[in-house]
Amino acid sequence: MNILFIMYDQLRFDYLGCAGHPHLDTPNFDRVAAMGVRFTNAYAQSTICGASRMSFYTGRYVHSHGAAWNGFPLRVGEMTMGDHLRASGMDCWLIGKTHMKADTEGMARLGLAPDSVIGARQAECGFDIWARDDGLWAYGPDGYYDQHRSPYNAYLASRGYDGENPWADYANAAEGEDGQIASGWMFDNADKPANIREEDSETPWLTSEALRFLQQAKGPWCAHVSYIKPHWPYIVPAPYHAMYGPLHVLPPMRDAVEQDAPHPVFGAYMRGKIAAAFQRDDVRAKVIPAYMGLIRQCDDQLGRILDHLEATGEIKDTMIVLTSDHGDYLGDHWMGEKELFHEPSVKIPMIVHDPRPAADATRGSTCDALVEAIDLVPTFVEAAGGTVADHILEGRSLAPWLRGETPDWRAVAISEYDYSGTPHCAALGLTPRDARLFMVCDGRFKLMHAEGGFRPMLFDLANDRHEFHDLAKGDAHDAEIARLYDHLAVWGRRMSQRVTKSDAQIVAARGSSLRRGILPFLVDGSEVPEALTERYRGPVRQHHAKGDE
Amino acid sequence: MNILFIMYDQLRFDYLGCAGHPHLDTPNFDRVAAMGVRFTNAYAQSTICGASRMSFYTGRYVHSHGAAWNGFPLRVGEMTMGDHLRASGMDCWLIGKTHMKADTEGMARLGLAPDSVIGARQAECGFDIWARDDGLWAYGPDGYYDQHRSPYNAYLASRGYDGENPWADYANAAEGEDGQIASGWMFDNADKPANIREEDSETPWLTSEALRFLQQAKGPWCAHVSYIKPHWPYIVPAPYHAMYGPLHVLPPMRDAVEQDAPHPVFGAYMRGKIAAAFQRDDVRAKVIPAYMGLIRQCDDQLGRILDHLEATGEIKDTMIVLTSDHGDYLGDHWMGEKELFHEPSVKIPMIVHDPRPAADATRGSTCDALVEAIDLVPTFVEAAGGTVADHILEGRSLAPWLRGETPDWRAVAISEYDYSGTPHCAALGLTPRDARLFMVCDGRFKLMHAEGGFRPMLFDLANDRHEFHDLAKGDAHDAEIARLYDHLAVWGRRMSQRVTKSDAQIVAARGSSLRRGILPFLVDGSEVPEALTERYRGPVRQHHAKGDE
Repeated sequence: MNILFIMYDQLRFDYLGCAGHPHLDTPNFDRVAAMGVRFTNAYAQSTICGASRMSFYTGRYVHSHGAAWNGFPLRVGEMTMGDHLRASGMDCWLIGKTHMKADTEGMARLGLAPDSVIGARQAECGFDIWARDDGLWAYGPDGYYDQHRSPYNAYLASRGYDGENPWADYANAAEGEDGQIASGWMFDNADKPANIREEDSETPWLTSEALRFLQQAKGPWCAHVSYIKPHWPYIVPAPYHAMYGPLHVLPPMRDAVEQDAPHPVFGAYMRGKIAAAFQRDDVRAKVIPAYMGLIRQCDDQLGRILDHLEATGEIKDTMIVLTSDHGDYLGDHWMGEKELFHEPSVKIPMIVHDPRPAADATRGSTCDALVEAIDLVPTFVEAAGGTVADHILEGRSLAPWLRGETPDWRAVAISEYDYSGTPHCAALGLTPRDARLFMVCDGRFKLMHAEGGFRPMLFDLANDRHEFHDLAKGDAHDAEIARLYDHLAVWGRRMSQRVTKSDAQIVAARGSSLRRGILPFLVDGSEVPEALTERYRGPVRQHHAKGDE
Repeated sequence: MNILFIMYDQLRFDYLGCAGHPHLDTPNFDRVAAMGVRFTNAYAQSTICGASRMSFYTGRYVHSHGAAWNGFPLRVGEMTMGDHLRASGMDCWLIGKTHMKADTEGMARLGLAPDSVIGARQAECGFDIWARDDGLWAYGPDGYYDQHRSPYNAYLASRGYDGENPWADYANAAEGEDGQIASGWMFDNADKPANIREEDSETPWLTSEALRFLQQAKGPWCAHVSYIKPHWPYIVPAPYHAMYGPLHVLPPMRDAVEQDAPHPVFGAYMRGKIAAAFQRDDVRAKVIPAYMGLIRQCDDQLGRILDHLEATGEIKDTMIVLTSDHGDYLGDHWMGEKELFHEPSVKIPMIVHDPRPAADATRGSTCDALVEAIDLVPTFVEAAGGTVADHILEGRSLAPWLRGETPDWRAVAISEYDYSGTPHCAALGLTPRDARLFMVCDGRFKLMHAEGGFRPMLFDLANDRHEFHDLAKGDAHDAEIARLYDHLAVWGRRMSQRVTKSDAQIVAARGSSLRRGILPFLVDGSEVPEALTERYRGPVRQHHAKGDE
């Protein structure tokens, strides 16, 4: 079996046809959902690209791998999906984005050359690289945001787009009046078509790269096809720019009560620049149709891949996963972007097609188990025929759900967010290590714990599915809060770093020191079989020398 | 300044003259105590050699570094005392024991050759090796316990002691009737003199190695002189074997109430082979005098080192630390060995001589602050003139206490013990990851939490200083228990793995993405200074090409 692990960036769980969006058709997402299981309660381990992805790729919580924000390097030696899959006999390739920041200091300390195979994999989050493109070729007074070279910009140059950064000037900009660049960074331009031929825009380009990979790949392989879209800049080429308009924009899910004595961290976010922009109806009226267009383009491109797999018959032998690293508030809860833990931000789409006959019974179904992003690596290892290293991997294989079983499962989903790098940390007067948030959700109640001495937030998803009413404002729900804090405490104590010794090795080693002569309990030797002490109870042994006296 | 970091193995905090032992004179320990500060509430991070030492050497909790038991490898890349000190311009040498198990699998994955400088340091816990001798050259049907070669056995061979393992046959055995080997493994033999000239026994040998090091060392250096003694086998050469006798054995600190409905883990330990042996008066009457003789020998050898430092004048420029990796129950609480968290097991001696004038005010004093083993690395880094990497190191420099200040300090000390490798785990029907214990001690109350669904243990050190009365047997102290659990929960959520990014780096990087063109909040560009968007608002720019159409 091969694995096609497709990630979209900032794709909301509910912006898909199969998830019930009333205006957005996604026939190809729906096509995979019909072939597999759509998990309706899947959560990202963090609500920011870098941290979330490092959890996807390591199968470990952010609190375990430590790469808690964009640009925080993943420590050298941390095991990744690639390490686990290669150990199971499966290659692991990257086509697109990871947001991986290499631990160059740690690599230098260990003498790892970035251009060696080992060094390159360490630097690339364990993947072998078909194409790496993180998709944010932003440029400012201090230079490029991304220190890599852009293969997409090289492609655009080869196609005749001029300038140093056609990603910014064409793919993510419209043509303004008088030929000016109308940048996609400005929401005012989100309703314009990107000034690029559709087939040259990012999503089709990456899809073509994926198809090139598929045409030559020898299995077993796992291919991580990882799109930047529908992540901002919110701008899309024709005809997608015009497929949706203000009439297709759902009203914001927000309520005045949310601004009444909000949790201080939520309050700080609601007062931020991003939130202010998304609180404007004119912004939503332009941005959301562009966002929907980007998703629709992703769907069409997904169709190309599915058609290819069907034409070659490979679909019968390919696990397909569609997911995202986090969502997008889009003005809900008075917020833009992501970062906090309301459902539009922390919940992710998770659709899994398992081609094996054992999964036939669940095709086209949904599953409401509490699924976490970290469950994918164990799922893949199992699919590759390997043994899940559960002293390292903190997620659990989804295979039982795919077979229609009901395994014992986690009681809560955890997500984390480290906002130490944001202005809100300074505004709230916090040290970096106090600028950390934890979500604990049991499917019914969702707690947000904030370090730094703040009260928590609590939502009752059953009675307030839009999460307007923060029940931690009063004390009526202290018992629920305490119960979720107990879950968080258990999680905090979890065995997460004993990564060099498996449970099986521990069990097998019991008693081994006894058989290697460690006997710190012998009164006279009668306590153990003679074989273990025969050296000290055997026939009289003459000392030939006691030193050189 | 140089640092002489001396560790004894299994030395109880209260088996020193300066700590008030009524029968055991330790003039040289007392001499250092008179030159410095004796910390009376110092705790080991774990009550077993390997795990405790990995915390000493990394400055991190066991829960953070993961090497939770003897023989669990320290993961490759984990920063050690040597890494931190070398970064501060100080060498870091080992003379003696570490109990380090190299992560050979991780090293192979990263292509690190064990015989390279980097590989050797990774394999040796960050130390450069003057002499490594873990001091347990036990041998049984499955071979040697230690996979290294013993430099001590090589020394003994050079001195004419015969056989393959003179460590076992001479240093840790007496001569029995008819020339038989009377092994030190058997407590029955603990009152006999080891069959070795005193100057050839382990403690003098290692001291001579330390002196050889000192005679040639060029500073600044840190030397970790790490003795196996007074760790078992409990046997000591003449004249030390006869210095103490049954009259010097203190009555066991134990009470029948401890065996009344004990905590299941404590109960399992009390029923074990080791405990059974130490519950016997005849065993204590032989073992404890040998243990005291071993300590007295350590003290005499410490005198050799102090005399050398005084003779050369180096003592004016040398920080000296005397400590141990854990204690020894010696029959107290119906227990032998260590592993649980009563004071005789988890509390450690900690004497620090800081030669700097700023420490003059505290010489000869004691300090009852809650000190942890992990505080030493930061103390050393500060002494070396370096900057404490507090996103990696979890301990805190003791320097303020040494200067007589009263810094804000931790509220609780934490210790941990993983007994997954012991028969008690199986006997209690636990999975390996449930066989974990945590101690939380605030100086007054001490809680033991056991994973696996057990109730906790609680002691009130103020009203029950011998820890006989487990207050968690009833529910009268639920508030104290909850309070200590809250401390444990905070600790569990601590930021322990963000080791690739310092607080200072985070603060310095704030806003940097803005200046690299990441602007996901612009409605029309008016939100930021023109310099940040000039590219998109500058003079009309003609597109020379829109692709190659």
